[in-house]
Amino acid sequence: MTAATYTGSRNFSLEELPGGAPQPGQVQIAVAFTGLCGTDLHIFHGDMDARVSMPAVIGHEMSGVIAAVGDGVDDWTPGQHVTVMPTVSCGNCPACRRGNSHICHNLNFVGIDSEGSMQSHWNVSADILVALPDGLPLDEAALIEPTAVAVHDVRRASVTATDFVVVIGGGPVGQLIACVAMQQGARVVLVELDAGRRETAKRFGITAINPIETNLVDYVAQETDGAGADVAFEVSGSAAGVGSAVDVLTTRGRLVMVAIHPKPKEIDLHRFFWRELEMFGARLYQRKDFEEAVRLVAEGAVPARGMISRVVSLDEVKEGFLALESGGAMKVLVDCNEVAK
Amino acid sequence: MTAATYTGSRNFSLEELPGGAPQPGQVQIAVAFTGLCGTDLHIFHGDMDARVSMPAVIGHEMSGVIAAVGDGVDDWTPGQHVTVMPTVSCGNCPACRRGNSHICHNLNFVGIDSEGSMQSHWNVSADILVALPDGLPLDEAALIEPTAVAVHDVRRASVTATDFVVVIGGGPVGQLIACVAMQQGARVVLVELDAGRRETAKRFGITAINPIETNLVDYVAQETDGAGADVAFEVSGSAAGVGSAVDVLTTRGRLVMVAIHPKPKEIDLHRFFWRELEMFGARLYQRKDFEEAVRLVAEGAVPARGMISRVVSLDEVKEGFLALESGGAMKVLVDCNEVAK
Repeated sequence: MTAATYTGSRNFSLEELPGGAPQPGQVQIAVAFTGLCGTDLHIFHGDMDARVSMPAVIGHEMSGVIAAVGDGVDDWTPGQHVTVMPTVSCGNCPACRRGNSHICHNLNFVGIDSEGSMQSHWNVSADILVALPDGLPLDEAALIEPTAVAVHDVRRASVTATDFVVVIGGGPVGQLIACVAMQQGARVVLVELDAGRRETAKRFGITAINPIETNLVDYVAQETDGAGADVAFEVSGSAAGVGSAVDVLTTRGRLVMVAIHPKPKEIDLHRFFWRELEMFGARLYQRKDFEEAVRLVAEGAVPARGMISRVVSLDEVKEGFLALESGGAMKVLVDCNEVAK
Repeated sequence: MTAATYTGSRNFSLEELPGGAPQPGQVQIAVAFTGLCGTDLHIFHGDMDARVSMPAVIGHEMSGVIAAVGDGVDDWTPGQHVTVMPTVSCGNCPACRRGNSHICHNLNFVGIDSEGSMQSHWNVSADILVALPDGLPLDEAALIEPTAVAVHDVRRASVTATDFVVVIGGGPVGQLIACVAMQQGARVVLVELDAGRRETAKRFGITAINPIETNLVDYVAQETDGAGADVAFEVSGSAAGVGSAVDVLTTRGRLVMVAIHPKPKEIDLHRFFWRELEMFGARLYQRKDFEEAVRLVAEGAVPARGMISRVVSLDEVKEGFLALESGGAMKVLVDCNEVAK
């Protein structure tokens, strides 16, 4: 089988690997598409070389068709369309013991900590398979994993139909959060500096503003009869984004920390006290989020097709990352195999 | 009637004021005791001169006996022992409209924004009275207001009997939070630099550690089978306290921001994301917190009597504040009148 392997900073090479039949408990997936995400881009940049074992087959946003099943796998059959929920927990750490196995202290994040889907045939444990409904195009199905992130984020904020929601940052996850929150019936505004991303949002029916041109706090005050936002999602990773998220919230407003902030940032704790604000860290997803994401993508409730900026082949992975880092692409997919799509 | 009035930075003077009968809807309270709190100390220091109208009668932690009732007050009679929940909301602001009137945007905090209880006779709206149960000594009853703060803080964290709780800061509110959390059945450790305050905690049956001598994170890890704390209360107002509160929490741990941090502080947002931590601002109290505080003080479930370091008379208010600012006193009461106690 054919794989695109990461071989060091900014390099991928196409390799023919021996592959082999699925082990007991595994299935072999003929991979259809693998999406490139921000974490993959960090790997491409060499920022995670200490964590990945080179040559590395990465990739965790995927779709495919079962090609073979290993011994003891009774629930799956060749031909079924599937995706994978790419997390394996230890079951023993404090997070697992307390029902938060999705953020297990010893999490094996498949596609980073172990072999991923950027290959034509992929053997994975049947435990992490998720069935796809009939008729769901496999390119759209590759958007289920980031949609699950958005579903989890929105659930962390307990968004309801009466909420006014601010999403700060209009990358793929920010756009998906906006869509999922709108599915809950909430009014949503997305805040994004980049004109192209604001245009994308508008295509998806999301109100998007440029915080340089429009004062966010004033805008939200006007939209909420002076109250402020019920929920803010910080998806920008910027200090300004954190500040805006705190400033825009109403009394008891909920701030969801989605972005990765590698260094500590200043935050207005007095406002947290004064307005009894709330903040919730949100990372990855739970099984119920993943299943909800399947439903949303299958029903066309999130614009999966519209998110796909470009599809590259397995020997064009580097070009895919270059498109991603240019900021011009929303979601780039790698076409991993010649399965029926 | 006699009042201690704040007349400018660090000065109080004893004055005979005309007083007068309670207006319609008011009662006149013969004030028994008024406690001095940290906010009062800020006023004493001159830090809130822009907010208080001098000469100011301040004071909001109090107990007393109804001396007279105004027209239209049918539910109260002279001789009843009472305290006051010293907050009056506007009913119209975004906080009030959304059920959070306790942190009304236009809050009248009685004793700061309007006349307080540091006087022998005090006319207040009957609406803010809270009845005291028979047999509750009036000096202990003056601790109900700060206990209500602690009850609210603990409720914000949804503390349960299975929780391990860290309280950072051993002033009166920190000690009361520890006691209220212990009442919920939680295991509690209080973190305090001052040896005297640690001794006070031990007298109250609270485990107290010196973070210079004992590594807090290691200590809590040992006590929780490696998990970390379920809840941390930041009551110190220090950057180190904020850092410790974030570091000590387990996955999905809850941080309650009780202290006032006038300036923004750095916070480890990556850990919020990674461990899905939660933070809740907590300010003042709601009616149910106040009523719960009455019950806890009356039942001796919080050490109200033990909290009282010193009682001064109305002409010794300055001495009371000096005792408070020296750090040697936990709670100083002002004996406001010669009512039966």
